[in-house]
Amino acid sequence: MLDPRTAVHVHDQLRATGPLVQVITNYVSMDIAANLLNAAGASPAMVHDAREAGEFAGIAQAVVANIGTLSPPWVEGMLAAVEAAGAAGKPWVLDPVAVGATAYRRETAAALIERRPTVIRGNASEILSIATSTGAGRGVDADADTADVRTDAESLASKLETVVAMTGAVDIVTDGTRTAEIRGGDARAPMITALGCSASALVGAACAVHDDAFEASASALAILTAAIEQAAPHAEGPGSLRWRLLDALSTLSSDAVAEVVAR
Amino acid sequence: MLDPRTAVHVHDQLRATGPLVQVITNYVSMDIAANLLNAAGASPAMVHDAREAGEFAGIAQAVVANIGTLSPPWVEGMLAAVEAAGAAGKPWVLDPVAVGATAYRRETAAALIERRPTVIRGNASEILSIATSTGAGRGVDADADTADVRTDAESLASKLETVVAMTGAVDIVTDGTRTAEIRGGDARAPMITALGCSASALVGAACAVHDDAFEASASALAILTAAIEQAAPHAEGPGSLRWRLLDALSTLSSDAVAEVVAR
Amino acid sequence: MLDPRTAVHVHDQLRATGPLVQVITNYVSMDIAANLLNAAGASPAMVHDAREAGEFAGIAQAVVANIGTLSPPWVEGMLAAVEAAGAAGKPWVLDPVAVGATAYRRETAAALIERRPTVIRGNASEILSIATSTGAGRGVDADADTADVRTDAESLASKLETVVAMTGAVDIVTDGTRTAEIRGGDARAPMITALGCSASALVGAACAVHDDAFEASASALAILTAAIEQAAPHAEGPGSLRWRLLDALSTLSSDAVAEVVAR
Repeated sequence: MLDPRTAVHVHDQLRATGPLVQVITNYVSMDIAANLLNAAGASPAMVHDAREAGEFAGIAQAVVANIGTLSPPWVEGMLAAVEAAGAAGKPWVLDPVAVGATAYRRETAAALIERRPTVIRGNASEILSIATSTGAGRGVDADADTADVRTDAESLASKLETVVAMTGAVDIVTDGTRTAEIRGGDARAPMITALGCSASALVGAACAVHDDAFEASASALAILTAAIEQAAPHAEGPGSLRWRLLDALSTLSSDAVAEVVAR
Repeated sequence: MLDPRTAVHVHDQLRATGPLVQVITNYVSMDIAANLLNAAGASPAMVHDAREAGEFAGIAQAVVANIGTLSPPWVEGMLAAVEAAGAAGKPWVLDPVAVGATAYRRETAAALIERRPTVIRGNASEILSIATSTGAGRGVDADADTADVRTDAESLASKLETVVAMTGAVDIVTDGTRTAEIRGGDARAPMITALGCSASALVGAACAVHDDAFEASASALAILTAAIEQAAPHAEGPGSLRWRLLDALSTLSSDAVAEVVAR
Repeated sequence: MLDPRTAVHVHDQLRATGPLVQVITNYVSMDIAANLLNAAGASPAMVHDAREAGEFAGIAQAVVANIGTLSPPWVEGMLAAVEAAGAAGKPWVLDPVAVGATAYRRETAAALIERRPTVIRGNASEILSIATSTGAGRGVDADADTADVRTDAESLASKLETVVAMTGAVDIVTDGTRTAEIRGGDARAPMITALGCSASALVGAACAVHDDAFEASASALAILTAAIEQAAPHAEGPGSLRWRLLDALSTLSSDAVAEVVAR
């Protein structure tokens, strides 16, 4: 359901236009998310406080709101930024980190979802948790994998009129009508902390350069998968996989991206 | 005073059970502490705000409270988390970063110590500073090394009925009755920022999988030492030592851990 | 305008004395700024909250205030620290990240500039933005390069009686009377997130060990340039350039530093 040429186009556009992406993300992911965006050609800006988050969304081309290390001032800033993005018709991505873990996460995710994210990027458990809380799914399963949750993700996307980008051993991206699967990567990738958060940031960058959020999201995950695969053969563990991934992203070929999509 | 088989057991258990560790730590250490726990098999969660820190401690298997970049909301969150951990009988680790430097650090450390940490992990100066302020030691010496402070650490452990895990050129772990020394590592390791903070996080993970906190703490430091030694021969400085350490941790053998303990 | 022997002297002094530098910086730069200072021989301390920032400035040898991820409590802490530094006659460095982007940044930078920074370290756009807002420059140009902004930087330095250290393809350092250019580096360096922030931290460390802030600033940028050049030939992208830069800094020769200055 994704044309390899679309992913190649998104990949090219990231480098050609260097979109400015406002990433309001957790502390753990700050370093890697920013470096990953830079390596992919985008321009990250971690502007989070309510005193400037909405104003900054006016100059950013996409916003990413990640709930990994929540606190009230950050929630305020996220709301200001996504409301400004929404009002300006700019795409924004929700990353509902560990949304099922606490009441505060559930409430914050619900408040953000009310503001209509363009894309929700999460793992299977997080997507299932949101699908359930919104009445679109069956219940929480901490060990869920993406294949198990595919129909919940499709229902959730339809119900919210959003794109759901669910990452795991197989990535599943859906807008409720179209569904794409991205296969590949490396089994050690989950040991790189905040790689999922960084994927959300890259999805935001892709949405900034390509209007169809379904295609943009699937393209972003294909780009990341291709870079992981280029990095993996020479990596001896999560430490080297991480820097090799950044190197690979910065020099990734269109062919490598197209090959992942065409599988 | 530590059986090599115990350290091997702790090492195996980290991988087998992947304990969830709530790490409330300073901003500088976020990235490395999370990645180091992941590489060792544990599952880090940096949940710090008082609105969810206590609730999250209910699902975590250990808590780590690190005072490196203090502010009032973080102190509130730390207190909520360690009180919840204490009430549930779960282990928690205090890392009193630079405790002697300011009044705010001394007060915060004192408030945390009142909540009875399972382990205090610090360098010689930090341990000496706490021992002194609690009447268990002699006075502050910024250039203290662990051997000089061994008796202070033992007195402090006895007085507080806690484990003191003091890292340096030689690591000394004591519960006041038993004392273990871990020797080895690499002279360039202190150039890796927040490696001590990451050691505290790993001590928390070890306490989550092994009930005897003295044994768990010494095992964690032995595991880290073994990984540093595996990484060091190929490292050309602190940059490569860091990623090689993560690679080494992710593939560390039981023999390497046992060898460090048996010295 | 910089004697190579001065840069070598600053480089030696960093290692010989290990100055304690209080770095109040953005979340993205925490990891790399701290590791870069450590690799260069300095001792970083990220102490930001107003409850201890002023007190800590009393023991630090230099302070760095970076506005990358602003919020009111951090601004309070920055003001406390730079006022304490100023009162004690200690050097402090302002890094006005993206100062032109929002009103909050402009106001905060203005409040900090009123406290008379020893050095302002920024890119050409940031320096131009400050020069303009203080009446010393012509207007904002997001794509400015340092050569275009040289005279604005010189006017700004004269007007504020400060040193302006402007980084880019060519670094320009000026106190209004003297101007030095540092040439070299690597075209991929800007892909390393927060390298500019880390340069500001290193300028702070250099000012801590050498009284002439113009010479100290230019020396710091020469040291960083030399390390980048040592790292670059073996780097395959921004991921490897980053860790190789840290390795290179930790073993950098005086000759390499002198060579960069002598160009």
